[in-house]
Amino acid sequence: MAGEFIDSLILKNDKKIVFLVMDGLGGLPLPGGDQTELEAASTPHMDALAKKSICGLLDPVGDGITPGSGPAHFALFGYDPVKTKVGRGLLSATGVDFPMTPRDVFMRVNFATIDKGGVLVDRRAGRIPTEETERLCRKLQERVRLASAATANVEIFFRPEKDYRAVIALRGDDLGEEVEETDPQQTGLPPRPPLALAPAATRTSAILTELLAQVKEILSDEPKANMILMRGYAKYQQFPSMVDRFGLNPLAIANYPMYRGIARLVGMQVNPLTHTLAEEIGALEENFPRYDFFFLHVKHTDSNGEDGNFAGKVKVIEEVDTLLPRITALNPDVLVVTGDHSTPATLKSHSWHPVPALLAAPTCRPDRVEQFGERACLQGGLGRMPMANLMALALAHAQKLEKFGA
Amino acid sequence: MAGEFIDSLILKNDKKIVFLVMDGLGGLPLPGGDQTELEAASTPHMDALAKKSICGLLDPVGDGITPGSGPAHFALFGYDPVKTKVGRGLLSATGVDFPMTPRDVFMRVNFATIDKGGVLVDRRAGRIPTEETERLCRKLQERVRLASAATANVEIFFRPEKDYRAVIALRGDDLGEEVEETDPQQTGLPPRPPLALAPAATRTSAILTELLAQVKEILSDEPKANMILMRGYAKYQQFPSMVDRFGLNPLAIANYPMYRGIARLVGMQVNPLTHTLAEEIGALEENFPRYDFFFLHVKHTDSNGEDGNFAGKVKVIEEVDTLLPRITALNPDVLVVTGDHSTPATLKSHSWHPVPALLAAPTCRPDRVEQFGERACLQGGLGRMPMANLMALALAHAQKLEKFGA
Repeated sequence: MAGEFIDSLILKNDKKIVFLVMDGLGGLPLPGGDQTELEAASTPHMDALAKKSICGLLDPVGDGITPGSGPAHFALFGYDPVKTKVGRGLLSATGVDFPMTPRDVFMRVNFATIDKGGVLVDRRAGRIPTEETERLCRKLQERVRLASAATANVEIFFRPEKDYRAVIALRGDDLGEEVEETDPQQTGLPPRPPLALAPAATRTSAILTELLAQVKEILSDEPKANMILMRGYAKYQQFPSMVDRFGLNPLAIANYPMYRGIARLVGMQVNPLTHTLAEEIGALEENFPRYDFFFLHVKHTDSNGEDGNFAGKVKVIEEVDTLLPRITALNPDVLVVTGDHSTPATLKSHSWHPVPALLAAPTCRPDRVEQFGERACLQGGLGRMPMANLMALALAHAQKLEKFGA
Repeated sequence: MAGEFIDSLILKNDKKIVFLVMDGLGGLPLPGGDQTELEAASTPHMDALAKKSICGLLDPVGDGITPGSGPAHFALFGYDPVKTKVGRGLLSATGVDFPMTPRDVFMRVNFATIDKGGVLVDRRAGRIPTEETERLCRKLQERVRLASAATANVEIFFRPEKDYRAVIALRGDDLGEEVEETDPQQTGLPPRPPLALAPAATRTSAILTELLAQVKEILSDEPKANMILMRGYAKYQQFPSMVDRFGLNPLAIANYPMYRGIARLVGMQVNPLTHTLAEEIGALEENFPRYDFFFLHVKHTDSNGEDGNFAGKVKVIEEVDTLLPRITALNPDVLVVTGDHSTPATLKSHSWHPVPALLAAPTCRPDRVEQFGERACLQGGLGRMPMANLMALALAHAQKLEKFGA
């Protein structure tokens, strides 16, 4: 049901849907403990909402599958997380607000350190800060000059991401994405050449070979970031948008490039950057009359999970709970509270565990869930369900799906 | 599993399966209430049965999808509700016991009112009663004469349905179903011409154009029903039958045309019309030795739901409960009690909510469900499952499915 099936049943109306997404929400107890981060957190407002909602556990991709943020968010937005493939370079490009065209190929770049013999000694150039990466990108943008016959009519763009990461865009004709990654994934080896892996990428391989020679020369006076590594090649790609698929007018309120990028790929408007959770909710309040779907992304549940900081993750959940009444006060027709995947602090990484979810709407059939937590959600009316089906349920509870068949 | 997979595992035996289907059974509490129609109803016999059964919640089509009666019943009978498409005209034709042939095209007809300028003023001709529609169909059957070159060797049949609705069948060669509907879906416009939408329907379009001119002339002296509107064109279509797929000898006990029609499409014998629920159960008792699958359809749960009559729906459920001992006294090997979809009285329409179900058989593994209701079924041994998989479970509990693989 996550496929294009529901797209043919769309009814437009003014009802409003809010997805409050705490990244990496699902968790595990500490060793010897009995409560997950969400269960341990004091969440009186979420618990009150859970009583009036249907609850359940969502599988982002499938049993045992640990999703990256890309597939998990596609699933949340009603896109098949396995079939909806998006190259890492494209994702990065959308995340830095790059104005894309159909003639573009993108790749993700690490600044790195090589020794005099050309052997890689640090794949992240000592984790140089974002400002350094910004300076390096400006330097390369000014000085790289593609001038051979092979590179005629090709434009190149360098854009900084966070920390030591950047994006390169090539713009031209006959470009392909089937190119070998130059990152050897370990130090002690030289970067690999950008060989073509398919005939369609022959020209791209030649351009990148010329480019890398120039980059190496231009960066040769840098103490740390004296080389780049390239991976995640991806051509421009058009996705069916949430506007076209679901008739929604969606706004993303998210502050990290990847989530802003995915939101753009599925046709959401993206709110300007904010700096705190309270500001994000302020943006929701301010924009509430102008859109009918809101994706509000909370990052720090995940980053605390990744850091192994159980108490920190609990604290972020409690902060969200404190702010929840500002969302319910807006009286959205459908309010979903969930995560994109699990990031248990004990594992310090994403995991395959299903994600607790609640859906609040006047058309909810009562279940027996009295609080918001993984164990409680097991008794919920949503049961365990594929995350990609959640959008259909949200649309149904907002009366945005018509009857199928006579 | 709803597909043809189980068909290859069929074992024939004498065991008997009964599907007691309360149309639109699933519900919601009244505003401010806490119990659905089924939960509010006093159902001691269903509750006793639930204790000995496995219970669960069935999704007719998928999360968030509100099914029409057609897809919902196909799912109940073990047919994929999305892939099994049947045109509305064909469904109507089966529902009026029309003896179909592979050369037929069917369409659904509304009697309607047009003004002197030919503009539609009432799409339902003042909702004329069935008897009027019967008279009008006889009148048209007697007087329409297709006589041009374009209509050579074409037969036409007019059959009344309920109220202002009728079915027309065209029988001949080179007929197609790709014809524009003549119902403009709103008053103030003239009926649309039956234009061909594909080359295969060119001849059909010509025939219908000639037919409509005659119908308009013949009905011109009628005070209300002076025109017809046509839609739901559908060629004859053969479905794999429950006899061939499951080795069953099935009987449908249902009194509304659509359900009788669907039952015929999947190869069931259809019991003559009865008038009360008690008579339906009488028909079950009488025919019990002669068939091994029984579909017993209760309509008024749905019609009360559609009317927004919570108490009325409760009462119908209680009436079914009172009569349930007559069914259990027959000692069927497998007894399923469920609905085809939800029709909450608060919504006055079909809805997407999953449908409570119980399956009683000596081979049921105990679960913890002590009464028959939506919330209780959440704890049941069936869990939440696709409705189309129910038939496989019923066949399995009747020992009608062999082992898969060595």
